[in-house]
Amino acid sequence: MNKKELAALAKSEEISLSALENGIKTNRIVVVKNPRGKKPLAIGEGCFVKINANIGTSPHRANIKEEMAKLKTNLPLGSVPIYSAAVEVTEKYNDVRKMSPETLWEKIEEEAAGGVSFVTVHTGVSEKIVRGLQKGTRLINIVSRGGSILACWMLANKKENPLLADFSRLLKLAKKYKLCLSLGDGLRPGTIADSTDCFQLEELFTLGQQAKEARKAGVSVIIEGPGHIPLHQIEMNVKLAKTVCDGAPLYLLGPLVTDIAPGYDHIVAAIGGAIAGMAGADFLCYVTPAEHLSLPTPEDVKEGVYASRIAAHAIDLSRGKKSAWRQDWLLSSARNKRNWPEQKKLSLNPDKFPKRKEKEEDCCSMCGDFCSMRFSESISKK
Amino acid sequence: MNKKELAALAKSEEISLSALENGIKTNRIVVVKNPRGKKPLAIGEGCFVKINANIGTSPHRANIKEEMAKLKTNLPLGSVPIYSAAVEVTEKYNDVRKMSPETLWEKIEEEAAGGVSFVTVHTGVSEKIVRGLQKGTRLINIVSRGGSILACWMLANKKENPLLADFSRLLKLAKKYKLCLSLGDGLRPGTIADSTDCFQLEELFTLGQQAKEARKAGVSVIIEGPGHIPLHQIEMNVKLAKTVCDGAPLYLLGPLVTDIAPGYDHIVAAIGGAIAGMAGADFLCYVTPAEHLSLPTPEDVKEGVYASRIAAHAIDLSRGKKSAWRQDWLLSSARNKRNWPEQKKLSLNPDKFPKRKEKEEDCCSMCGDFCSMRFSESISKK
Repeated sequence: MNKKELAALAKSEEISLSALENGIKTNRIVVVKNPRGKKPLAIGEGCFVKINANIGTSPHRANIKEEMAKLKTNLPLGSVPIYSAAVEVTEKYNDVRKMSPETLWEKIEEEAAGGVSFVTVHTGVSEKIVRGLQKGTRLINIVSRGGSILACWMLANKKENPLLADFSRLLKLAKKYKLCLSLGDGLRPGTIADSTDCFQLEELFTLGQQAKEARKAGVSVIIEGPGHIPLHQIEMNVKLAKTVCDGAPLYLLGPLVTDIAPGYDHIVAAIGGAIAGMAGADFLCYVTPAEHLSLPTPEDVKEGVYASRIAAHAIDLSRGKKSAWRQDWLLSSARNKRNWPEQKKLSLNPDKFPKRKEKEEDCCSMCGDFCSMRFSESISKK
Repeated sequence: MNKKELAALAKSEEISLSALENGIKTNRIVVVKNPRGKKPLAIGEGCFVKINANIGTSPHRANIKEEMAKLKTNLPLGSVPIYSAAVEVTEKYNDVRKMSPETLWEKIEEEAAGGVSFVTVHTGVSEKIVRGLQKGTRLINIVSRGGSILACWMLANKKENPLLADFSRLLKLAKKYKLCLSLGDGLRPGTIADSTDCFQLEELFTLGQQAKEARKAGVSVIIEGPGHIPLHQIEMNVKLAKTVCDGAPLYLLGPLVTDIAPGYDHIVAAIGGAIAGMAGADFLCYVTPAEHLSLPTPEDVKEGVYASRIAAHAIDLSRGKKSAWRQDWLLSSARNKRNWPEQKKLSLNPDKFPKRKEKEEDCCSMCGDFCSMRFSESISKK
């Protein structure tokens, strides 16, 4: 990126150019672009909080048209090469454990060459951790799909995770394609009961070491974080991850603050995400209402994205982002004036506004004639 | 309450009997009963977080049948006597400012005698504050209906708020009917822009003084709290309120962490409520998706209650409540075994579970054959 592009990016993030430049230099900020090289996106310290939405098919539900409908975007794209590797190997041998490490390396290179902005690579899932899991202290061993595939492969082949064993090869690949590595949390807790246990932490400390190596090699990394975490452990988890990874951008999968609310996990994750963001998280993976239930429909995706955007916006407000404050001010100002068209226009999802009857124009069906806004307006007029 | 009832209540709240007794004595815990004198509910320090749902009609939408459908409960009831006073006066004179203070006092006594467990009384809305509002520094003067009615009345009649001017009369009434007073926040900020301003704080400090007087008189009080508050100001607000009100139970209306998401304010409030709960809030007022848009439908009420329950449960987990942890553990255990009927049974809202096809029995449409649970189960079997 040239100086002009950097300046424009700094401006749009409401940070100074030097903060952006310094952030990029120290891997506290990562810049990702979309495959067609259009608008870059900055993720990290001081920037607006970003959100991620997932798309994809599954063996039990593969509707390409529906997935493509979810993909109407010009934004940076990430991928998870272990998924395509697993699909290829399963189609060939009907057994993911028969994967050759070269298949995985090829998939990473293929997707990098294809133009993805970042890849999730589960570089911290070690043989030692997987053997540790066999002691049976976790309620749910692994909930990360990529992590569980690698774990099965390691046990069957009695070999170390190739991405961990040959991390320098990964760095070379990333360097070649200017690829950002999103270091996946294969050991993220999948239930409140497993939160912040030794397996999660050991993986995190490995990612921290790899983040240092990447920075030395000039490769940008994002750290993926947990998972299912109770409220009171979120701040600690975020600060720990930020500390051991030298401030690398932190990408949160949730966190989900309870396990008991299938159908509402977008709300559960919005709560966790907001708290994580206050503590320093930079990037939130959306969670849809279908999480733990089924593959999300486009409607689920939409609701998941809105919930994430609410959390992200609330964090931006807490960070003093001027344009975020302005958005709230403008909507509230319209609300104070009972200007419904303006409120609708300024709100996150205008479709949520009901059609109004004429008599509701100056108030709403909530309070009717006992509208506090109207009453309190008369205070000012005294 | 006798010792046996107290012991049962302490047990159900997972606190010691002495903690409960001491909490009640110092007004850090308030016990409310439902009108028929059935199961009592403890609200306050160390107890499970409680939630409140509102029902009622408005001049523009009055469907008594629908409201009664929302009321299928055996739980304690609260009311807001200023509402019924305002309706009566408006029907008579078509002008709420013509209310005689005696009408308000009568309504309070009528509802107390009728058996409500607690009444919301806006005792902190002072003439001084209302005149202060006229200087025009707030974006939205008053969003509390009761508060705005009292403010208009004070300005028109050039008199102090009768509930504030004659607080000792209120205490006598409360004493007579064993009524809990919920000291309302008429000056709660109605937009992020007005959060934690001098009007909100002055009212809070008045409520703190009144809480002390009530405690001296042996009347139990709950303090109502804001409102629209950005993430980073919630903890401070809760701790301030708890401090100046000597640890009285804190009843949060939200807080809403942004103004821009009409249609999603149940999510916005769940985020704020969870953070407030971590800081010490005891009682959450639900917010429905219809907030700021219209009178909620029964479906809106349901979704609002679920969002509040998620926040409350997440707080209970953070407070180490054993039965809350057990609930998460049981559901996650069923999830680990892909036991769908059990997951459904244990979840917050079983209706959210889709009908499953046979082939999905051992996994789901999210990952299909690439089910991490199944993969990771094989780890344990090694």
